[in-house]
Amino acid sequence: MTHAKDLYGWQWLIDAAELTRFTVEALRAAGAGRREAEVTAQVLVAADLGGVESHGVARLRRYVEGLHSGSINRHAVPEIVADNGSVCVLDAQNGLGQPALCTAVDLAADRARQFGTSAVMVRRSNHMGIAGWFAERAARAGTLAMVSTNAVPQVAPMGTNEPMFGTNPFCYAVPTPQGTLCFDGATSTVSRGKLEQLDRLGEPMLTGWALGPDGRPTTGVPETVQGLIHRKGYALLPLGGGDKDHGGHKGSALSLFIELLCGPLAGAQWSRHTYQGGEGGLGHFVFCLSLEALGDPDIIRAGVGQLAHEVRDGNPVDPEAPVRIPGDRRHRLSEQRNAEGIPVLESVVADLDAIAEFIGVTPVSAMTCDI
Amino acid sequence: MTHAKDLYGWQWLIDAAELTRFTVEALRAAGAGRREAEVTAQVLVAADLGGVESHGVARLRRYVEGLHSGSINRHAVPEIVADNGSVCVLDAQNGLGQPALCTAVDLAADRARQFGTSAVMVRRSNHMGIAGWFAERAARAGTLAMVSTNAVPQVAPMGTNEPMFGTNPFCYAVPTPQGTLCFDGATSTVSRGKLEQLDRLGEPMLTGWALGPDGRPTTGVPETVQGLIHRKGYALLPLGGGDKDHGGHKGSALSLFIELLCGPLAGAQWSRHTYQGGEGGLGHFVFCLSLEALGDPDIIRAGVGQLAHEVRDGNPVDPEAPVRIPGDRRHRLSEQRNAEGIPVLESVVADLDAIAEFIGVTPVSAMTCDI
Repeated sequence: MTHAKDLYGWQWLIDAAELTRFTVEALRAAGAGRREAEVTAQVLVAADLGGVESHGVARLRRYVEGLHSGSINRHAVPEIVADNGSVCVLDAQNGLGQPALCTAVDLAADRARQFGTSAVMVRRSNHMGIAGWFAERAARAGTLAMVSTNAVPQVAPMGTNEPMFGTNPFCYAVPTPQGTLCFDGATSTVSRGKLEQLDRLGEPMLTGWALGPDGRPTTGVPETVQGLIHRKGYALLPLGGGDKDHGGHKGSALSLFIELLCGPLAGAQWSRHTYQGGEGGLGHFVFCLSLEALGDPDIIRAGVGQLAHEVRDGNPVDPEAPVRIPGDRRHRLSEQRNAEGIPVLESVVADLDAIAEFIGVTPVSAMTCDI
Repeated sequence: MTHAKDLYGWQWLIDAAELTRFTVEALRAAGAGRREAEVTAQVLVAADLGGVESHGVARLRRYVEGLHSGSINRHAVPEIVADNGSVCVLDAQNGLGQPALCTAVDLAADRARQFGTSAVMVRRSNHMGIAGWFAERAARAGTLAMVSTNAVPQVAPMGTNEPMFGTNPFCYAVPTPQGTLCFDGATSTVSRGKLEQLDRLGEPMLTGWALGPDGRPTTGVPETVQGLIHRKGYALLPLGGGDKDHGGHKGSALSLFIELLCGPLAGAQWSRHTYQGGEGGLGHFVFCLSLEALGDPDIIRAGVGQLAHEVRDGNPVDPEAPVRIPGDRRHRLSEQRNAEGIPVLESVVADLDAIAEFIGVTPVSAMTCDI
């Protein structure tokens, strides 16, 4: 097959509703309940819509295989194991991460309405996609929300070359009069997904992003990607890099903050000890703060909107690149892709076709991409 | 006068109790109440003890002058202007920041004990020293705490060269069986205090730390320091620098998170509009999460201690530099300086002498330093 390829190597377009249909059916066929499948599909497709392809349907295979093999519990029902007013702890029973975290977010938003603020922690969970989807859900319920998770160990805390921390997203959302303002980014300088993208495009990486197994900076993209996947001693560096000169101790401390919340405070494993004993064992957390508890929520939302407006209106360093607020690019892309379809790599379409055959559902319908 | 100077230019040693005595007396003579003076002195001296000289008694003059001139309200009594269970808002009445934030922290720790989690915001406040002092206070009360503040605008959000954000510390603390684990660092790559220190030592700065008024990277230390102080269009860069390559969008979003909380959510000014109309107008926030609401606090503390132990035990990149956990260096320095005295610059001693004369209190007693 030969197809037009754009800069990112995309060759196919898939309608968002069709991609959701396929994802729900594949998860259902693998054993997930209806609600679990629908929530998980929404989170995956939202990532593809927003340009976070590394967390979209390219990851569907691991969910389908996990449910099918039983390494992810098909029958999990998140259970409240501690309930102390504004603080709850959920046991996800080793089910899909998305529905567990969705339950946690709805519970946190509800408790914040009741008490003003709330914290809900999740233990014994699995990968949950993009944290931003969950934070935006809580923001739409009238709160400022932080959401995070730990993950497979890939990041070396400053001073060591041992990958101990996950890429632990720093993520928050808050309502504005023009929708939600939402940031969601790994606390490593770059994510493994970014390196995988460079690998596909044959583009170089920079020093300060990763260390090789000898503890020295590495700039070989393919070996770093493979070394991270197969856990051969390669490590991503925290935001700020590997030393104090550019603030590596700060990025490391930010990642540690999330380790503490998702690990010992949630009663879950911290990243270094996840994926042991046949379970992911991941932890997540949600903080919500109700705007209504602080004052008139319309005034607060307007203040947030005004702040965002003034930053966007700042004198741009590059006259061609207006200043952006977190979420601006993602919201614009989502709108466009909802209307025009989601561009997908040839390799991802092939993977979805293989999933369809493996699990016995109607393959996804894709159109040739001519972006 | 000629004195031994160590690497940092220190020439004098002052006993911690004597420095506290002097600071309390100077603040009292300038009009502060006893409790206000004592809390403020504790926070300032804790900074000097912990090696954060930029936030120690080197800043006493601005407090004394502010109280004396009336630009800081001598008679302020922090007032609860919103009380909704786990969420409160305090009006600091333009008083000293330290006693206002201390009231907020104690209130937040109390409400977290009652509700599990809490958020207390402060508006109409002033500079409050090191956030870590406050977070550690809340951690000693059995909570994981985040504390932050906005500040004079010095940091350019990614994409613009306009200094709009404060250096907005990211700060948290959590109890461990061996004391508190506490991180406290500016969300800019470096603080202005760091540049001032390099200026004194005649050492160079790196690119990626600051922009000049033309929007291009600057590496001239004296002009950057002066340009920041006199607000001549110089700007510090967020953690991760000025572009996406090393995660400038992430540092910028972290700083924005603190702007949102300390500005529109607290009903305070955001950094860009602080220090206008004769008041600092700063905002602070405190989040507390009670360990007891999550489970057995001894087990949680032990889990935090174990995580910290494993990170410290990581294979060091530099065999001479063991891996550190946030707070390790500061705690060690504090212990040493409590025993041996606090090293202080000649210029700071001269400043304290001038304050003593101006406000009419017994000068601080300093010993020649022979570190």
